[in-house]
Amino acid sequence: MPKSRAKAGPGKVGQTMVFAKAPTILGAASVVGPREGAGPLSGWFDVIKPDRLLGQRSWEMAESKMVEEAVDLALAKAGVKRRDLDFLLAGDLLNQIIASSFAARNIDRPYLGLYGACSTMALALALGAALVSAGFARHVGAVSSSHHDTAERQYRSPTEFGSQRPLTAQWTATAAGAVVMGPPGQGDLRLTHATIGRVVDNDQKNPFDMGSAMAPAAADTIVAHFKDTGRKPDAYDLIVTGDLAAVGQPLAGDLLAEKGIDLGNRFVDCGKMIYDETQDAHAGGSGCGCSASVFAGYLVKNLAAGKLRRVLFVGTGALHSPTSYQQGESIPCVAHAVAVENGRVCGN
Amino acid sequence: MPKSRAKAGPGKVGQTMVFAKAPTILGAASVVGPREGAGPLSGWFDVIKPDRLLGQRSWEMAESKMVEEAVDLALAKAGVKRRDLDFLLAGDLLNQIIASSFAARNIDRPYLGLYGACSTMALALALGAALVSAGFARHVGAVSSSHHDTAERQYRSPTEFGSQRPLTAQWTATAAGAVVMGPPGQGDLRLTHATIGRVVDNDQKNPFDMGSAMAPAAADTIVAHFKDTGRKPDAYDLIVTGDLAAVGQPLAGDLLAEKGIDLGNRFVDCGKMIYDETQDAHAGGSGCGCSASVFAGYLVKNLAAGKLRRVLFVGTGALHSPTSYQQGESIPCVAHAVAVENGRVCGN
Repeated sequence: MPKSRAKAGPGKVGQTMVFAKAPTILGAASVVGPREGAGPLSGWFDVIKPDRLLGQRSWEMAESKMVEEAVDLALAKAGVKRRDLDFLLAGDLLNQIIASSFAARNIDRPYLGLYGACSTMALALALGAALVSAGFARHVGAVSSSHHDTAERQYRSPTEFGSQRPLTAQWTATAAGAVVMGPPGQGDLRLTHATIGRVVDNDQKNPFDMGSAMAPAAADTIVAHFKDTGRKPDAYDLIVTGDLAAVGQPLAGDLLAEKGIDLGNRFVDCGKMIYDETQDAHAGGSGCGCSASVFAGYLVKNLAAGKLRRVLFVGTGALHSPTSYQQGESIPCVAHAVAVENGRVCGN
Repeated sequence: MPKSRAKAGPGKVGQTMVFAKAPTILGAASVVGPREGAGPLSGWFDVIKPDRLLGQRSWEMAESKMVEEAVDLALAKAGVKRRDLDFLLAGDLLNQIIASSFAARNIDRPYLGLYGACSTMALALALGAALVSAGFARHVGAVSSSHHDTAERQYRSPTEFGSQRPLTAQWTATAAGAVVMGPPGQGDLRLTHATIGRVVDNDQKNPFDMGSAMAPAAADTIVAHFKDTGRKPDAYDLIVTGDLAAVGQPLAGDLLAEKGIDLGNRFVDCGKMIYDETQDAHAGGSGCGCSASVFAGYLVKNLAAGKLRRVLFVGTGALHSPTSYQQGESIPCVAHAVAVENGRVCGN
């Protein structure tokens, strides 16, 4: 892997924040449901719940409990107490992001609520890294979640209907992923760049094919990242979108190819990684918790072990609502990218 | 007004970010509906729309148009072009914050979606100021909106019902407010501190009395702000909550009095300012756009004229959803505070 040609120095180039003082990842944790725990990444998740209700009265409060548990576990791994968390950055898919806000009520630390649909984990990492890098925080928590049943009844049909879904549809993961970041020099894993996406909308209106809707946004942000940093794809061991799944990922690859960018087999997608073909998840996984748990589980653990040296994590979000869909609007999408590396392996 | 005793220097004290390199407000604009334009602040708003549909096909897209128009007007006042806006920070009350995301699609700049209910404008100002102060951005837009009819049908009843509302209820304002921030030294108005709130929930469950629900969060953040900065109430000409309205504001005053803090007649509330008693708005105004438009309209203009020297703007948000309410949950609330001053009048 060639060294990055990006110039060191604080500030911003194009759409990309450059963290000369790179925040570190002190702890990360993933909490997932039974279906996700039965998938190919089973061994990488910290907690696999036996059911989707977690002893709560509602799926919504179950999702909120997953958020809280993921944050507490990431804090424990980081050796940071709740009271030493300067800010909690969180968001989810639910109307008024209630999974996050109810968890924040219990965690009881200064709370910054975010919304970027399935790009939310990347957004939380980007903003959290900026706050730590600038010295406005010492410890920051970034967390995001989704829950199959809360999303299904909010976005699509009451779950009792058992509606059929086309094969282009994705399966909202029941999962939460949390990361605790700390100051530069505190750990091997460092967050060096964050590329913030524009809203891209190619007039796709089918909410049962969000991969196709999000692919142009993913490609737009990846192109911007390479332009801003001067990096080429081989700067990264993996470029991980989350979640374009089986329909959207090849489209993003085509759009990048049109720009002369070939990511090759380092281009993977959280939505394709979280389920296997026996699990009837159609195009693959989706939901804020899918990319959050794959990041906090598989990616952070492989980076920490040095098996991955540097990764570009590209969260992709479809920003429509059921109301905008019913009103005939197309689906505006966004993608945010964060570059994470093992500093011990990559050097300075 | 005594000088602040807060120590200069970058970083954070308690819940408060201290902007030693204080970002400046280069432009601000407010766009409101007919009812808001007929109220006591009529003369302070930049644009008063004659109807609530703005020539759009839906109220939701009308709200989105107000966001776009407010941003463009703030940019024009700032002398900043769309393409020179590094980030747009935006949020609103709608499910999946579609008013913001559809506006961001048109504005076409890197977009950070936020959710803090009616605290969103303060949240956008706080995060935007942090990004500018740290050198991660040169120009940042912060915008928030609400629309009476989009909120009414989403949170309460189809508007055709003409439901009766209790006198403790607030009236969601049809309004948007936008601010363009720039680097230190570029203008008189500077944003010096941002205090990020915790989620506070005193087990209030009545969504027709959100002032009572939010008052404890407002008091909690105001107490934290004074503790962190060493300032006393007389450091500010106005301490402006948005929006506790007629029921919540006295409660917040009582809670502060219990802590030995008397804000006196410098304690005002956007929800009480935006309508007068003849307008049948019950407890007063609410909605992200209420505090955003009062900030961008009345407060910024009076600060710029030197009639106000220093203001603490405290956005307050009720973070519940109709789903959480129907499930019997109480209303978690949050408040974020930003300190803005006219540097020419206040000196260094």
